[in-house]
Amino acid sequence: MSVTIKPRRMQAPVQSSSTPVIKSSLIEPDGGVVVDLVLPESEREAKTAEAESMPKVRLTKIDMEWVHVISEGWASPLKGFMREDEYLQSLHFNSLRMKDGSIVNMSLPIVLAIDDETKEGIGSSSDVGLVGPDGDLIAILRSIQIYKHNKEERIARTWGTSAPGLPYVEEVVTPAGNWLIGGDLEVLKPIKYNDGLDHYRISPKQLRKEFDKRKADAVFAFQLRNPVHNGHALLMNDTRRRLLEMGFRNPILLLHPLGGFTKADDVPLNVRMEQHSKVLEDGVLDPETTIVAIFPSPMHYAGPTEVQWHAKARINAGANFYIVGRDPAGMGHPTEKRDLYDPDHGKKVLSMAPGLEKLNILPFHVAAYDTVAKKMAFFDPSRAKDFLFISGTKVLLQMRTYARNGE
Amino acid sequence: MSVTIKPRRMQAPVQSSSTPVIKSSLIEPDGGVVVDLVLPESEREAKTAEAESMPKVRLTKIDMEWVHVISEGWASPLKGFMREDEYLQSLHFNSLRMKDGSIVNMSLPIVLAIDDETKEGIGSSSDVGLVGPDGDLIAILRSIQIYKHNKEERIARTWGTSAPGLPYVEEVVTPAGNWLIGGDLEVLKPIKYNDGLDHYRISPKQLRKEFDKRKADAVFAFQLRNPVHNGHALLMNDTRRRLLEMGFRNPILLLHPLGGFTKADDVPLNVRMEQHSKVLEDGVLDPETTIVAIFPSPMHYAGPTEVQWHAKARINAGANFYIVGRDPAGMGHPTEKRDLYDPDHGKKVLSMAPGLEKLNILPFHVAAYDTVAKKMAFFDPSRAKDFLFISGTKVLLQMRTYARNGE
Repeated sequence: MSVTIKPRRMQAPVQSSSTPVIKSSLIEPDGGVVVDLVLPESEREAKTAEAESMPKVRLTKIDMEWVHVISEGWASPLKGFMREDEYLQSLHFNSLRMKDGSIVNMSLPIVLAIDDETKEGIGSSSDVGLVGPDGDLIAILRSIQIYKHNKEERIARTWGTSAPGLPYVEEVVTPAGNWLIGGDLEVLKPIKYNDGLDHYRISPKQLRKEFDKRKADAVFAFQLRNPVHNGHALLMNDTRRRLLEMGFRNPILLLHPLGGFTKADDVPLNVRMEQHSKVLEDGVLDPETTIVAIFPSPMHYAGPTEVQWHAKARINAGANFYIVGRDPAGMGHPTEKRDLYDPDHGKKVLSMAPGLEKLNILPFHVAAYDTVAKKMAFFDPSRAKDFLFISGTKVLLQMRTYARNGE
Repeated sequence: MSVTIKPRRMQAPVQSSSTPVIKSSLIEPDGGVVVDLVLPESEREAKTAEAESMPKVRLTKIDMEWVHVISEGWASPLKGFMREDEYLQSLHFNSLRMKDGSIVNMSLPIVLAIDDETKEGIGSSSDVGLVGPDGDLIAILRSIQIYKHNKEERIARTWGTSAPGLPYVEEVVTPAGNWLIGGDLEVLKPIKYNDGLDHYRISPKQLRKEFDKRKADAVFAFQLRNPVHNGHALLMNDTRRRLLEMGFRNPILLLHPLGGFTKADDVPLNVRMEQHSKVLEDGVLDPETTIVAIFPSPMHYAGPTEVQWHAKARINAGANFYIVGRDPAGMGHPTEKRDLYDPDHGKKVLSMAPGLEKLNILPFHVAAYDTVAKKMAFFDPSRAKDFLFISGTKVLLQMRTYARNGE
């Protein structure tokens, strides 16, 4: 058996033989519009001058990734780093209530931490300038609110554990200051990385345009942070086939590797991108119906809590189908010999998450090497012994070796 | 200044001079009806005989308190111990999505834990008999589901900390088994404690009837687990006055001490009930417009997460106003010298909690002894030095001394 498709509030595919009416989007972004916080070029000079006179907050590399994420609207309707009311709703309810009473999903606190000294420097200013790791002025944060950063509570509620060794916690949360600063973001110019991969960094607005241009009538997103293996490819092609069978005429795959912070032993982004483009070149996936782009978010490894963020961000990018596998955004428990999260909780939580009702969740079955048919196939439990699991982890180990050898 | 009343979706008070139309309830119970899982007397014998033949699960004293809570409908629409889908929604979203798409609040996992041996004994049975600590058959749990009890995750997500020394965790969670068993509850007969306080244990249905009988046009609930002090009394009387000013004619106070598990250094229930009834006898509160009853829930000391449960349960009991103070359901951090929760988070979280929109939240100001006016009054920060804080803790210490001396 293969992908189980349980459509929820799905748009009916266009069935008439006349030219299909292509909507500007297949799924409404959270809050109704894709947030875009990059200032128009005409305003940059004046705003930069204004920002020069404000108290400054120094950003880390990962803070910059969040500025990027927020500024392009992946976190729509969020318009900046969270103020306390947004932070508390995210932490307790994994969602935000909008003024009209509607609910959007927001499972990760998207926050900016500052230390005592920075807080003192801000004093009673209502706006601050955000400065990148290299000292460049990056953005303005307006109508700020400073509130306590209770790291213990943030960690426990976000990760469901306080065990030492959580990668994002060790890299970001523990070294961070004891205050959080929220406010409205204005980004002085688009965030670029100049690592040769910026052409893969396609914004939600650009993605939506591209889906329209290609006349997509369904977009299915696949989040990954590891190299694509044959099992993935099989799954993605099978999903497309199923969508065609359902009556969609032009389902487009958004193959969407995560580009922000990942743990030290994950395969580096450049190696992964190389491998993804190779898969397209080799014709394993059809370039006509596949878009490869980078999802700029950093990785929390927060399992069921984080997978909601991964899905929600793809709604904003125009995907109306989201593929979810075993143990999404999970990892091994940092101190015990087990998975940190129940491998089934991710897809269960995703299917029940407030604000994700409009998204079609596609749980997928595990692909394995069928030693009888001598090819990758969906695992059939009735003849379990015929299957060989070539796991993502094995491919990953192989890729790591490639990376080390500079291949 | 005094109580700030911010009504949300409030029913307009009856203003006409003709006989007011008293609705059967001022606020709809969650799910539309108050759940009642106590079997009618006519069915008891047959069901008890049936239960005898089922595999048994032994309940602790606190499990029994939850059976009591669920059976009377405090947790409506919950009809038994949580199955996994309810547990996950509670843990991640503090709420449950009903079949019609509506949301009810459900912030605490209401679960029954079993150990490996009990799980093995159940085998593939779909129903089990629940046996009290004394060996009596108490209830049947039907169409059961057994799933993993990940204590680490439950604790972190419910309390926002994994620090050792959380009273409910040490008493209940840590010693519990590694499995949770959910299902539909049928209680063989009403739960009684035979401690001389059962007449205070008034069910949500009975409370709703009593409010109707008294022709209440507003019910304001006050949760407490400590003795009433003058500040509380001032606050409750002031709330009534404000409600009258708003046009309500007959606001009734539900003075509602918690009767289940509390930590060892809290004042025992019998002492508290004695003191509450004394306050009524002394005329500090008007018995005509006050109902004193026991809320049978055990205490989690889970701050902002738990206060939602306290409020939600009172919706089911017919209260449409809920008074919330500083640091509700909070306690000192078990290992650090600070409050475990930000004292303001409770009322903030309550005001944003999914499923509580229909409840009017009444934040209250702190009462203190005004050394100029020589009486208890609401604290005025502009002349802070004039106020003496006779805290609940001080009264509590005094009550403990009384309790020790048998007074």
